Amino acid sequence: MWSLPPSDSVLHFLSLVAVAAQGMTAALAAGRRSMDWLGVCFLGCITALGGGTLRDLFLGHYPLAWVANPIYLALAGGAAFITILFARLVHRLKVAFIVLDAIGLVVFTMAGCDVAWQMDASLPIVIVCGMVTGCAGGVLRDVLCNDVPLLFRSELYASVSVVTGLFYATAFGLKLNAELWTILTFVLGISFRLLAVRYKWEMPKFVFTGDEERGS
Amino acid sequence: MWSLPPSDSVLHFLSLVAVAAQGMTAALAAGRRSMDWLGVCFLGCITALGGGTLRDLFLGHYPLAWVANPIYLALAGGAAFITILFARLVHRLKVAFIVLDAIGLVVFTMAGCDVAWQMDASLPIVIVCGMVTGCAGGVLRDVLCNDVPLLFRSELYASVSVVTGLFYATAFGLKLNAELWTILTFVLGISFRLLAVRYKWEMPKFVFTGDEERGS
Amino acid sequence: MWSLPPSDSVLHFLSLVAVAAQGMTAALAAGRRSMDWLGVCFLGCITALGGGTLRDLFLGHYPLAWVANPIYLALAGGAAFITILFARLVHRLKVAFIVLDAIGLVVFTMAGCDVAWQMDASLPIVIVCGMVTGCAGGVLRDVLCNDVPLLFRSELYASVSVVTGLFYATAFGLKLNAELWTILTFVLGISFRLLAVRYKWEMPKFVFTGDEERGS
Repeated sequence: MWSLPPSDSVLHFLSLVAVAAQGMTAALAAGRRSMDWLGVCFLGCITALGGGTLRDLFLGHYPLAWVANPIYLALAGGAAFITILFARLVHRLKVAFIVLDAIGLVVFTMAGCDVAWQMDASLPIVIVCGMVTGCAGGVLRDVLCNDVPLLFRSELYASVSVVTGLFYATAFGLKLNAELWTILTFVLGISFRLLAVRYKWEMPKFVFTGDEERGS
Repeated sequence: MWSLPPSDSVLHFLSLVAVAAQGMTAALAAGRRSMDWLGVCFLGCITALGGGTLRDLFLGHYPLAWVANPIYLALAGGAAFITILFARLVHRLKVAFIVLDAIGLVVFTMAGCDVAWQMDASLPIVIVCGMVTGCAGGVLRDVLCNDVPLLFRSELYASVSVVTGLFYATAFGLKLNAELWTILTFVLGISFRLLAVRYKWEMPKFVFTGDEERGS
Repeated sequence: MWSLPPSDSVLHFLSLVAVAAQGMTAALAAGRRSMDWLGVCFLGCITALGGGTLRDLFLGHYPLAWVANPIYLALAGGAAFITILFARLVHRLKVAFIVLDAIGLVVFTMAGCDVAWQMDASLPIVIVCGMVTGCAGGVLRDVLCNDVPLLFRSELYASVSVVTGLFYATAFGLKLNAELWTILTFVLGISFRLLAVRYKWEMPKFVFTGDEERGS
């Protein structure tokens, strides 16, 4: 989750879109696990708001955004519930869905950087907080669905978040024009993500099957 | 976990019963995964105290109850350990067990609402905190046992918590007689849960197996 | 993770070794799940720093060590990345690896006790915090790799942490010579762990397969 970017109404609107989009991705994942309706709504909330919650816990940034504005819970849970009713339709809107999800990733990353920056975090922590905000919700979703998180295995998702965060945070460091930079970052992030999906860009995988000698 | 409801000794006693009961359910789950004795005790503590811990982290409510009163750790871990010794007996006491577990759910939910209310949370957050306190421990248990959380899939467990919280929180809003309302809520919650178990009430499930186009 | 033991440069150096060692164990686990390179680095950071992060959240101990010193992130992630390149070699250095890992366990446990003690936690909480710091990172690693945590199932790992913490905390209680006690604890912990690995000491397991009557 994220604290409201108050001045910029476009970014605010995109944030709401992002919360809803993440709730919907969660619902589709829940459907593959035969969850019941309430479980679908829970998973929607955890996926959409989990990343921001983790970031706020790491930074000691209270109150959490959804505690201050419970409307986010309603939005994420509501989007998940609506997905139950229109699952086949949502599924068919493949392109729209990928775009919405990319918006979610990029907007969450930027909002996460904002919060960390306002708390005077150092530059690496600003970028880490952007990434946690953008990506951790999906990790929680996969853990609760009993999967190895796709984030760790699949196409460039975390990488997009890192690049977006780096680019965005540079503006903080250089004290550049904030609005222009916000738009530039947004366009860059979305483009990178959509190109990665379109051309199936992947990072090299590490496969190692030797007996490990010990575990925990 | 929960902060002590100090004035009401019956509710306090029920809270201790609840912690022990949750530790015992965890031990039975651990047994199916062949955990070692210490692992069983850990899982007992995480299950019994995890929900309250999460709630306290979300609210920034320090110190955590088990940090302030480590006796809860001993109670949850001890109950789990005793279950190892008497597993077959515990298993046979099916009805008693279901009742204890229902008490745990309802008492934890009420205690969670209490804490959130004392921290001036809004009504939706009071109910969410009740639900997190009542249910999240079981989710953590299932994740650590490598299962899809039953909470998201099975009979009315979270629903009982939500209804209990709603009913209980109404009293806060209306400033009704607290003690009477506590008893009423308790009876309502327990009855609802036991009826749901007895008659196998279920919420509709969302099953959707279309290829999802992307993941995290 | 851990806050720097500032005065003792040997313990500080061992802490850095511990972070790197935990990052490397995580990378080997990631390799068995075919994670991509960035995923390997994430898992390294979560494994090496997750335990200390949880402890700090439980205690309300801000800022988190890796937020204050992002170099730990670089160290854990870097160690994981190097393991990708030298996996076969790292794998062959079995003995060195077990020793490094044991150092990690013991040093993290002691650092966790230190932090809790400095925050005036009670003795049981000091020991629990040592154990969380030493062991929870490995639990997170296993959950993210979709395994039942080895901690709950395998040889004496948590037990070593508990014994180390008990022994170390006794010094606090008795106000003994801190440096001497630190060295003694370190030697005891490492020896216990290595003997447990060498002779395959195990704790009894609890196996129970009766139908459980309910779940969450």
